[in-house]
Amino acid sequence: MKLIIGNKNYSSWSLRGWLAAKQSGLSFEELTVSLYGEDWEALKAKEGEFQPSAGKVPVLWDGDIVVWDSLAILEFLADRVGRDRFWPKDEAARAMARAMVAEMHSSYLPLRRACPMNIRARATGDVQLSDEVEADIVRILGLWAEARARFGKGGPFLFGTFSAADIFYAPIVSRFLTYGIGVPSFAQTYMQAVWEHDWMQQWIEASEAEEWTISQFEVVPGK
Amino acid sequence: MKLIIGNKNYSSWSLRGWLAAKQSGLSFEELTVSLYGEDWEALKAKEGEFQPSAGKVPVLWDGDIVVWDSLAILEFLADRVGRDRFWPKDEAARAMARAMVAEMHSSYLPLRRACPMNIRARATGDVQLSDEVEADIVRILGLWAEARARFGKGGPFLFGTFSAADIFYAPIVSRFLTYGIGVPSFAQTYMQAVWEHDWMQQWIEASEAEEWTISQFEVVPGK
Repeated sequence: MKLIIGNKNYSSWSLRGWLAAKQSGLSFEELTVSLYGEDWEALKAKEGEFQPSAGKVPVLWDGDIVVWDSLAILEFLADRVGRDRFWPKDEAARAMARAMVAEMHSSYLPLRRACPMNIRARATGDVQLSDEVEADIVRILGLWAEARARFGKGGPFLFGTFSAADIFYAPIVSRFLTYGIGVPSFAQTYMQAVWEHDWMQQWIEASEAEEWTISQFEVVPGK
Repeated sequence: MKLIIGNKNYSSWSLRGWLAAKQSGLSFEELTVSLYGEDWEALKAKEGEFQPSAGKVPVLWDGDIVVWDSLAILEFLADRVGRDRFWPKDEAARAMARAMVAEMHSSYLPLRRACPMNIRARATGDVQLSDEVEADIVRILGLWAEARARFGKGGPFLFGTFSAADIFYAPIVSRFLTYGIGVPSFAQTYMQAVWEHDWMQQWIEASEAEEWTISQFEVVPGK
């Protein structure tokens, strides 16, 4: 299998696809392409690797099979290795995890636009957030709180052990840290567990090693 | 099970959730609430039924289990009754169906904004579409063509028999008809198959019987 991803520092959907590939336990080759760089335009223009996804990342290739979109990649891998590796076993927990993941997949545009993922940056100045962004943050914290309270007994993650829900909210954890979003202590504890996860640490190190900079995503106050 | 949905004439995500419930073969009760109407505000304010979804439809309740978001509802039901009822059996076909559904779930905002679903309306005037909307239409037609050509041998739907992909693109079929979008003949044939499907016919009849009108969605030229 080959996974095509964008810059590790900036590409939140790539992080989700990559964590899903890690979670599958299957071996895969990864190809990182700098978004909006010269290689990017060349790759998008090239018939083949990017064409099925309309030039978006991540894209997973397995022989002739191509899957674009991080959620589809996760489900494709779950079909391969078994649902239980990605989703809670308990039906009520799984129902909530599925709803949270689907909501992340389609929603929170104000937050995503105002606070692009930028793993290595930390705000040093004041972050001004619109009411819409604040509403997204409150909604996410409410979902985290409910998942942790109802289904989080078995470990430090949203549904106890590391699952699809953590994979989908990992870029939110990064955003909250980058933009210095104040969160209650249960959320700090959860965010720390995600940040310290081995795969996140690998991704963070690779982000820090990248030399690419994308100016439109460099909107962190004080930087 | 109880499925809460919005106006059948306008609520595209409700149509997806409802078709998924039909496809599951399970019996369910449905509750239609007029979006943005008085009941809507009352229901949203009421602790309980809408609270988990932040006031969005569709919402599926099954005892204490609550699932919001149409894609999560579909997957929850697939967990219950078996994946094969919703997704193609062939792995390559399923990979593409999953990617198409995920893309529908997160994308096509220009098309969705410019051409809100309005099942009973038909444009009689000229429809002016932006380049972005045209690009969405071209992308969707490309995906339909590829699915039909590669995996559509077993029937008139995207992947042969009626699947999650048709459920997710059914509101697009409605939009193309409402706004008089010109499409190639393979797409006309596909759209007719969706439109004539028993469940779509039931939904269309119910849409036509609704007396609610939502002015912000009444943007069909010539109407």
